[in-house]
Parts: sequence; structure tokens; C-alpha cells
Amino acid sequence: MRLLEERIRKDGKILPGDILKIDSFLNHQIDVKLLDSIGEEFHEQFKNCGANKILTIESSGIAIATSASRYFSFIPVVFAKKTVAANMAKGAYEAKEHSYTRNIEYTVQVSREYLGENDKVLILDDFLANGEAMHALIDICDQAGAKVVGCGSVVCKTYQPGEKRIKDMGYDVKVLARVSSMSDDGSIEFE
Amino acid sequence: MRLLEERIRKDGKILPGDILKIDSFLNHQIDVKLLDSIGEEFHEQFKNCGANKILTIESSGIAIATSASRYFSFIPVVFAKKTVAANMAKGAYEAKEHSYTRNIEYTVQVSREYLGENDKVLILDDFLANGEAMHALIDICDQAGAKVVGCGSVVCKTYQPGEKRIKDMGYDVKVLARVSSMSDDGSIEFE
Repeated sequence: MRLLEERIRKDGKILPGDILKIDSFLNHQIDVKLLDSIGEEFHEQFKNCGANKILTIESSGIAIATSASRYFSFIPVVFAKKTVAANMAKGAYEAKEHSYTRNIEYTVQVSREYLGENDKVLILDDFLANGEAMHALIDICDQAGAKVVGCGSVVCKTYQPGEKRIKDMGYDVKVLARVSSMSDDGSIEFE
Repeated sequence: MRLLEERIRKDGKILPGDILKIDSFLNHQIDVKLLDSIGEEFHEQFKNCGANKILTIESSGIAIATSASRYFSFIPVVFAKKTVAANMAKGAYEAKEHSYTRNIEYTVQVSREYLGENDKVLILDDFLANGEAMHALIDICDQAGAKVVGCGSVVCKTYQPGEKRIKDMGYDVKVLARVSSMSDDGSIEFE
């Protein structure tokens, strides 16, 4: 997605430890026009997937998922909750997510009321790095008996294992900006 | 806002401890059509406030703020980050928020890059209970030298102190659904 790549090149920040920050337009401050272009592009990529629900994970996924929902005839959005405390909600679907950035194990939860065996789920998130968050969301869909019909990420770094990991599980993965290299001088290459 | 009150009456859940859950359409699963009606109503209430930025707090505020932004000519949204660990980001504006529901002290943070003395800020959030989150966001605007031009909340319970607390500080507070009483049998009254 050219518009997004240009924006990442212009306003993305590369921090030590191979971290790409897109805080100025997506993950802390949000440019809602760009957000809607992202939502529209996810619809373009997944318009034939048959989803009746979008699943994402707090916090940054929420804006992306609600924007996309408008292009999918306002199908409901469910956002998984993330907590460091285990077993918080009773009777929720739960999965573990290891955050490599923070070196913390999160418990990811979705209430049983909002996901079930009749659901065809499009999973959307901001970053696909090691695939931990995406994997936890797929796990939760499996527990619910829901069918995952697509997995979309705004950004991934192609040299990290997440995209391949999820594709190898048999899922249809689409990424809007695929970063193939970054260096500390600020240069970013896209695939 | 009649549409919202009807929805709260129909799908809101009252839990022991005077807790109103609106997880099925706003705080866990999101009805994006209703969300956009909420965004539009905030614009109706604050259209003359002169805001050039919307400030909210993760997680549930994000969908509300990005929806509202569309009706305010796509002004940027900034969402404050909430952490139990203190002093996470260097050089961020910080304020404390005590959560009465969870009995935890949060540190609320906004990067200095995204809020400054030229900003006229509309603060939006989902719940106004004791006013702790709203107060923390106002505190952060004060630190940034930004002007708070309005404070909007989707729901408040009028018998809790938050609304009065923020109004007494001199701010223009608007609430879309004002709950005046709830009882364990499920009945809810609006003011």
C-alpha cells in the first residue's frame, strides 16, 4: 500500500533494537484519514472472505478494526483484552501471548458471548512480528469453534518469522506494508 | 441520546457492586453503527468548541475518539497510554489515575510530541465515574500548556462525583447517557 509506505518512510522512527515506531500516525497519535485508507485497503484485500466479524486486540488494533468494519457493511468488531494477570474473567476464552518487545507473558481474553461456532472471523492487527498476538487470536477462534477466514496486518518485517508462521498454519495472510530492511540511519526498504 | 439509552436498557448488564457493563456493543464487542452515532452526537454537542485535537485514553476510548474525529473534519486523535509500571516512557507527560473498579493506581502518559501549547483539546471517554481518568487527561493538557475546550463522556452515573468534579473545575462537560439509578433486577433509569 503505497500511501502507507510513504508515510512510514516519512514519519516512522527506527529505534535501537530493530524497533519501528509509527506513533505519530497510528499507535499513539492517529491520522484518521490514513486510518480509513487502511480500513478500505483491508476491505479490498479481504472483500471475498465472507467474514461476519472482525477480531482484533487492544489497544492499537481497535481503531484499525472499527475503521475496516465500515467497509464490511458494519460487521461487529470484537477486541481481545490483554492482561498480565492470569484468569481475570471467568469463562472467557484465553490464550497466551509472549511479548518479545517487553519480555512479558500476556493473557489474551475474549468473552464466550461474543465469539462462537457460527462466526467467520477476519483477524486484523497493527504489527505482525513473531506472530504471537495473531497466534493467540487464532487459538481463541479455535476454542470458540469459529472459522478464521483471513489474517491482516498493517505492517510486518519480512525478516521476522510471524508472517511465515501464520501462513504455514494454512491461513490467508495479507500485509499492507512489508518492511524488508531498516537501518539505524533511518532508511527503510519495502518489499 | 435516546438511541444510546435504549441500547443500554436493552443490552447493558448490571453487575454486583454497581457496575454497568456495556461490553456487548461498546467495550468489548463494538457496534460500529452505534459508535458512529455516538461520534456524530459528540460533534453535535461540541461543534463550536474549536478543537484541533481529540484526546482519549486506551482502550475503550480509542474507537469513540476516532469515530468522532470524522465529524470534526478528521482532526488528529491522541490516545493516552495507561500502565501499572511508573515512568515507562522518557520525557512523556504523566499523571496518576486511581481505578476504583480495580483498586489500582495507573500511570497515564502522553508523548510530548503530540500535545503542545497550540492545541485546543476535546477530551472524550466512555465512562465518567469518579472523574479519575478525565482528571488525569486534563492534568496532562495542563502540563502541555494545551487548552481543554470540552470534556465528553458516553455514559455517567449522575450519583457518582465525576461529572460535578470536572464541571466544578470550570470545564464544559457533556454526557450522552446519564444514568440516575440502577438496580440489581436490571432496571435502569436515565435523567
